[in-house]
Amino acid sequence: MSELRQNIATKEWVIIAPERSNRPDDFVSVEKRPLPEVPYSDRCPFCAGNEAQTGSEVLALRDDRNRWLVRALPNKFPALSPEGELGYREQGTQRRIRGVGLHQVIVEAPEHNTTPALMEVAQVDRVLQVYKQLSLRALDDPRIELVTLFKNHGVRAGMSLLHPHSQMVATPVVPANVRQRVDLAIRYYDDHRSCVYCTILAEELRSGERIIAETPHFAAFVPFAALSPFHVWILPKRHQAAYVHIIDEERADLAWILRCVLRKIFYGLENPDYNFVIRSRDGQPRAVPYFHWYLSLVPRVSTTAGFELASGMYINTLLPESAAEFLRKVEA
Amino acid sequence: MSELRQNIATKEWVIIAPERSNRPDDFVSVEKRPLPEVPYSDRCPFCAGNEAQTGSEVLALRDDRNRWLVRALPNKFPALSPEGELGYREQGTQRRIRGVGLHQVIVEAPEHNTTPALMEVAQVDRVLQVYKQLSLRALDDPRIELVTLFKNHGVRAGMSLLHPHSQMVATPVVPANVRQRVDLAIRYYDDHRSCVYCTILAEELRSGERIIAETPHFAAFVPFAALSPFHVWILPKRHQAAYVHIIDEERADLAWILRCVLRKIFYGLENPDYNFVIRSRDGQPRAVPYFHWYLSLVPRVSTTAGFELASGMYINTLLPESAAEFLRKVEA
Repeated sequence: MSELRQNIATKEWVIIAPERSNRPDDFVSVEKRPLPEVPYSDRCPFCAGNEAQTGSEVLALRDDRNRWLVRALPNKFPALSPEGELGYREQGTQRRIRGVGLHQVIVEAPEHNTTPALMEVAQVDRVLQVYKQLSLRALDDPRIELVTLFKNHGVRAGMSLLHPHSQMVATPVVPANVRQRVDLAIRYYDDHRSCVYCTILAEELRSGERIIAETPHFAAFVPFAALSPFHVWILPKRHQAAYVHIIDEERADLAWILRCVLRKIFYGLENPDYNFVIRSRDGQPRAVPYFHWYLSLVPRVSTTAGFELASGMYINTLLPESAAEFLRKVEA
Repeated sequence: MSELRQNIATKEWVIIAPERSNRPDDFVSVEKRPLPEVPYSDRCPFCAGNEAQTGSEVLALRDDRNRWLVRALPNKFPALSPEGELGYREQGTQRRIRGVGLHQVIVEAPEHNTTPALMEVAQVDRVLQVYKQLSLRALDDPRIELVTLFKNHGVRAGMSLLHPHSQMVATPVVPANVRQRVDLAIRYYDDHRSCVYCTILAEELRSGERIIAETPHFAAFVPFAALSPFHVWILPKRHQAAYVHIIDEERADLAWILRCVLRKIFYGLENPDYNFVIRSRDGQPRAVPYFHWYLSLVPRVSTTAGFELASGMYINTLLPESAAEFLRKVEA
């Protein structure tokens, strides 16, 4: 029989229905999904050597010979543009503002034929450093209310260019979905005088049954009410509301654990498509005790359908404990 | 420049970024997507003649020679099962209940090689009649809090069997996402003493620029803040909170307009995958003035990626007014 589980932080119910499929192995990609063979493609705007194909650089980290290692660029087809005022307009039930904001690409490496799972830890750390710098810059803009950092790996995950990259979108509104999570975290704090994410993390570490990897500063686990097979959360152990509060030592640790989880996914599931996103409460005037940033990783090994669309409720056909056990065992 | 639009009923912001793609034509399916050639497949459990391959019938509509026309069955791989008690358990931050509920399939026709867009209106009406009967039965069960009716058409939309069918899932909880919509509708009612959906519908009918089709009892339009290209809402003109309140004359009208919209999608976009869902406030002790049921149709012509996952905010690359104009013009 299936089970409904609730994520106490998001109040989302998930139907855990493992009888609909069975073993973690069932989710291993069947098609071969090789990375590009060569490190350079003359048609790729993100490859080192093709800098002329892109707009002006937002920022870059360089080596001592002045070659870029990680590079941030404006998105060529931006969803939002940096110029102008918001121009909020309300007319009957119609509310609109101009598409003001930032949409930037983080090119994660000069080489075309790699992916974070295969990079050196130091390179992943550089990418994370750029995430932080871009966030801080975006938050300087008073029009920006939310910074969203995410990666789309593979076509099913919405990737349009093969060269490894992630994206930052800075929006002039806080979406209802994000506000809802914050409201729930505040309510939990009101009732318990503790951060709901700290509480969840402590329980996960105590039980250990859904833990995938742990470092001095971070833990990676499959949430109790995981939305889909191999859904992973990576949380900092120190309470911190915003990703921009991460310190260098923690960031190096995050680079290690993120790469470790991505390697387990890459080798264990044969390079499936995935998204990861950073959920963070940036831009607050001071540290908030109720929210806790985290990275959420969703391999695209299942399809959401009408039920998810209608109810916002997911059906997860793999027991979170089985997913965690499988990933824990993958050498990476 | 793009624009952010808010759906006043759901408070969702959408980025309308039409410069990222351009014409409605860009979304027409490129692969040929033919329906099966013959009306019968011996391996299909839903085909007339193969009734022995499925579990016992939940209900059926039959013709005067006692052949079934529409048939409801238990799902062979149910996400939820009808037996037993909820058994709510809370342990630390972990909340769970047993997977109690209903998961049924509505076989929409005896023939394998059809789809609602190509059926007679009377057949679509029979399907809608079965939806209502199944909902009413499910709501008789005191453990059920929400009935979700939906259709997955095509593999990208989560369809697993080709034979035309839709599904009903009756859950013992109201998901956070649904509760949120209801709360917003209540708040709007408190402020305005009117139903937010009635207000939206009146504005859409007045402006007409996003209307696709209209009948005496229903209107179909692309919402002002459509989440994706060709996203369509079909609303009853008479205020009614729950789908189960629909009367026969209205149902016949809904069959006509739903088929009309599905034909426009089928011919105009070359049979894309789609989901439709009915959002309804069933199971209330009396009619509620604040909520209004509707059918939401989402052709799967775009991919959601990390940004949508992180923010719950969509990027729609087609202007809703252009989508509506395109669909309005398709002969169907």
